[in-house]
Amino acid sequence: MPQHVVIIGAVALGPKAAARFKRLEPDSRVTMIDRGKLISYGGCGIPYFVSGDVSDASELQTTAFHMLRDEAFFRDTKDVDVRTETEAVGIDREARTVTVRHLPTGREEVLAYDKLVLATGSTPSALSVPGSTLGGIHTVNGLEAAQHIRALVSGGGVSRAVVVGAGFIGLEMTVALADMWGVETTVIEFRDQILPGVISGNLARMAQRHMEDKGVAFRLGEQVRAFEAGAGGRVARVVTDDAVLEADLVIVAVGVRPNSGLARAAGLAVSERGGIQVDEHLRTSDPNIFAGGDCVELKHLITGSPAYLPLGSLANRQGRVIGTNLAGGAARFSGAVGSWCVKLFDISAAGTGLTLTAARAAGFDAQSVHVSQLDRAHFHPDKGIMSLDLVFEFGTGRVLGMQGLGVGGDALVGRVDVLASLLPSAPTVEDLGGLEMAYSPPFAAALDILNVLGNAAENILEGRNKGIQVDEFAVRWGARNGHGPYVLDCRERANAEDLLKAHPEHWHNIPQGELRGRLDEVPRDTGVVLICNTGARSYEAFVTLAHAGFRDVVSVEGGMTAVLAAGVRV
Amino acid sequence: MPQHVVIIGAVALGPKAAARFKRLEPDSRVTMIDRGKLISYGGCGIPYFVSGDVSDASELQTTAFHMLRDEAFFRDTKDVDVRTETEAVGIDREARTVTVRHLPTGREEVLAYDKLVLATGSTPSALSVPGSTLGGIHTVNGLEAAQHIRALVSGGGVSRAVVVGAGFIGLEMTVALADMWGVETTVIEFRDQILPGVISGNLARMAQRHMEDKGVAFRLGEQVRAFEAGAGGRVARVVTDDAVLEADLVIVAVGVRPNSGLARAAGLAVSERGGIQVDEHLRTSDPNIFAGGDCVELKHLITGSPAYLPLGSLANRQGRVIGTNLAGGAARFSGAVGSWCVKLFDISAAGTGLTLTAARAAGFDAQSVHVSQLDRAHFHPDKGIMSLDLVFEFGTGRVLGMQGLGVGGDALVGRVDVLASLLPSAPTVEDLGGLEMAYSPPFAAALDILNVLGNAAENILEGRNKGIQVDEFAVRWGARNGHGPYVLDCRERANAEDLLKAHPEHWHNIPQGELRGRLDEVPRDTGVVLICNTGARSYEAFVTLAHAGFRDVVSVEGGMTAVLAAGVRV
Repeated sequence: MPQHVVIIGAVALGPKAAARFKRLEPDSRVTMIDRGKLISYGGCGIPYFVSGDVSDASELQTTAFHMLRDEAFFRDTKDVDVRTETEAVGIDREARTVTVRHLPTGREEVLAYDKLVLATGSTPSALSVPGSTLGGIHTVNGLEAAQHIRALVSGGGVSRAVVVGAGFIGLEMTVALADMWGVETTVIEFRDQILPGVISGNLARMAQRHMEDKGVAFRLGEQVRAFEAGAGGRVARVVTDDAVLEADLVIVAVGVRPNSGLARAAGLAVSERGGIQVDEHLRTSDPNIFAGGDCVELKHLITGSPAYLPLGSLANRQGRVIGTNLAGGAARFSGAVGSWCVKLFDISAAGTGLTLTAARAAGFDAQSVHVSQLDRAHFHPDKGIMSLDLVFEFGTGRVLGMQGLGVGGDALVGRVDVLASLLPSAPTVEDLGGLEMAYSPPFAAALDILNVLGNAAENILEGRNKGIQVDEFAVRWGARNGHGPYVLDCRERANAEDLLKAHPEHWHNIPQGELRGRLDEVPRDTGVVLICNTGARSYEAFVTLAHAGFRDVVSVEGGMTAVLAAGVRV
Repeated sequence: MPQHVVIIGAVALGPKAAARFKRLEPDSRVTMIDRGKLISYGGCGIPYFVSGDVSDASELQTTAFHMLRDEAFFRDTKDVDVRTETEAVGIDREARTVTVRHLPTGREEVLAYDKLVLATGSTPSALSVPGSTLGGIHTVNGLEAAQHIRALVSGGGVSRAVVVGAGFIGLEMTVALADMWGVETTVIEFRDQILPGVISGNLARMAQRHMEDKGVAFRLGEQVRAFEAGAGGRVARVVTDDAVLEADLVIVAVGVRPNSGLARAAGLAVSERGGIQVDEHLRTSDPNIFAGGDCVELKHLITGSPAYLPLGSLANRQGRVIGTNLAGGAARFSGAVGSWCVKLFDISAAGTGLTLTAARAAGFDAQSVHVSQLDRAHFHPDKGIMSLDLVFEFGTGRVLGMQGLGVGGDALVGRVDVLASLLPSAPTVEDLGGLEMAYSPPFAAALDILNVLGNAAENILEGRNKGIQVDEFAVRWGARNGHGPYVLDCRERANAEDLLKAHPEHWHNIPQGELRGRLDEVPRDTGVVLICNTGARSYEAFVTLAHAGFRDVVSVEGGMTAVLAAGVRV
């Protein structure tokens, strides 16, 4: 029997659910409403529109074949009625009706539904500090807001910008401003690293360093206390705990919160953190109401706990699941492991699953291992460094997550995608060491970096290597004047030369190939820190020393490559 | 108790097994022998050395930290004895000895072993036709042979080359000759497509067309009958069934066969096709002898049957497994699904698992679906077309393989690697549709092409779409003057204009958005072939026609994008 489906929200999930449902039930009717004027646009493309990479906002709203996805498009090609500038103001679940208001006229209307879909998305959080409503302060809130920002910047009126928040959107906007428009940009982040919560401090420092090389300034561990206006009444200064920064433009990107007010008012189950609760069919606590996208809470497939993952890719896939289920299907969306990627000037960052911190917080007895190496055959001209952290569980060797940086963005994302697709089935580090990956010198090394990472973790689990990472190396190196460790550079003499000269008392060199014959030079009464270029030779040296009875030995994971990338001074 | 391990073969697997074993048992002794002068080199890099991308042959033999992996390197850094130019001439399994012969002196010696590793590799097949031993005819047989070829080409003496065999090595050598040295190159292939056995005819035609655009000539379905000498006694002409081609250089790349003569002579189990048989611990039929790499037969993880997969990446991983097991471990190498990638000028090809032909030959009731679409957000400036064939089983929806082409090589290989890592656990097309992939506009579309591919296959399985691929379209279009189909272009008028003018009787256009209102224009008494740019709109049109009761309708998978890429004339 034909149904009438009402969908609230027409950006990502809504249109996808509508189109899928109509293909399954062409005789049923769909009405999709949205508060905005613009619908069905690629919200994740906003920073690329602001940067100018995408020349016109309409490109984010067109199909790959250049058709604008507006109301007429949905009517003609999908047989879906769309009402823009229309807000849902209340749901009567008993009567199965939604009251909607046309914003320009204020006219209200009651729509009857058989099934309802909540695709209400999220809203960027604002800062509740004095001056936060001044002109020139923007959140990244949809395409219309982005058009404002782009107009400001391209008009030439912005020479200094402050971005508050060093998460994905904050950093993407930073790149857009600094790279394409040459705006002098400072990023303020409350926590002590960029990309907080999604990568380790070591990787964060490497990425930060790259962005600093591109001219971006960072103020970490700092909070905005107020915004102050200039002569024109617009924002002119950002006041933090420690400084006053001049700014013509402020972007606030301190996270988003789910738009679940409507759901809550209708008595649907909503979590404490504000996400609408859904089952694996994306059904809310009312069987006639589905919800998905940025307004729902999902199950994290590794921790098993609820998680809030406002990601466009999840919304799109959820849209199809809801479309199927509206038509009586039983499609599932069982949760997510949380996979992401972001381009930061010439490098990319990406990750999936849990960070070490998140894994430990979730109760796992977790450890991580770091590998920095070339992303393809070392003799191939296009090679670049890729740095990966693998997070795994002691005992079981279960892989819990991976995060990384790379010069070759597609190559990095390819590795992350491999792990993202495996994580729900709880692979072990041994599985990773044995993964079959396509090989040819222009694309990979014969032993892929994922294999190396799995092997490196296995070596640690089995006690055949003991690694420290860059932050720990910095601590030990900092203590070199006291009871510091014996730092042994296992590279060839020529590679170690400069450091031997700079630190004749604290830096030592025995090439790995000579170590077996020179064991008597290594002190047995102090800790030994082994370092080479990437960690491969220091691992060999570790094996040699361990076999010779040395006990207090560690090898620096990622070696000098990681040390230099993280900006640790030696 | 310390052991003595003898390893025969020191290119890929041998060194890896040696190094791993020595890390586990530093007190044991390893002797590794090789017939060649050069050892431990990246054999898959040979085409890149011939092209000049890799300037010096030694780069293929160095570590990522620029140390040459020669005998001294293995002695110093790995504590492994290496003997080059030394051949194994016989194994006495009872006595546990290998007789080896030093090739320059002819001196023989008997080495006692506790464990033996056969890493004897493979030998390129030769053509047994008249003239096949003439100067100027080369197989790609190790680094020393490659140095010969490079010297010939860089010396300027080669203006026309013929490559026999359009497999990976043949095509990589073709690119090396044509791209970097401007050599006029013709490829002769006995079978009727390039990359025979590893991709579909449709993808092969697309790749061939790209190579033709770069100036390479192909002669498919043709066999070499003889080579003829010129004035200097070197090869000057290649005689095929159909033509006589002039050539200063001939590369024969018609496959390789496992070097298993030594194993066979020692009474080890060797398959009919010549691969040494091993169990999942890579142990031969003699528990003291292991084997791996190009000389063994593996289990294909999808068909369950024996397979011969001479791939460098497998050899490397097998080396570690053997190293572990030499030290008493129980590491497994359970088999492979067969994953590969190859760069062909500006595009790349890659695949994993079974092709449709291979799947059917293995007894699967298989089908394939083709998707051509952009490899990242369509509004991102770096986008390129990616074309993928997914092979799956009817009924179960089990995914059996995937092959593809792409402009963005790393992006393509990333998708293939995802599937390669999943294939051993027999994923379904539904799993593929739901895969979590990292998304950001510079790297992917919000709905990744793998999700699209899974959904497309699901639509076919559930009868919601019926696709034909480019070859079938060409057949139907070729029959347009008889009882041909009604070809309906579902793109906008402007896109269809040229074809409407060229074929006013046979090409029809109703934009997909207008189709519901113009159903009476579509004939019900003849088959309908729907086509658009990539297959997305023709799928929507298929749903509309099916709902309106049209029965004999198909949609062209990959649309005009695939038709044009394959060079089908319309």
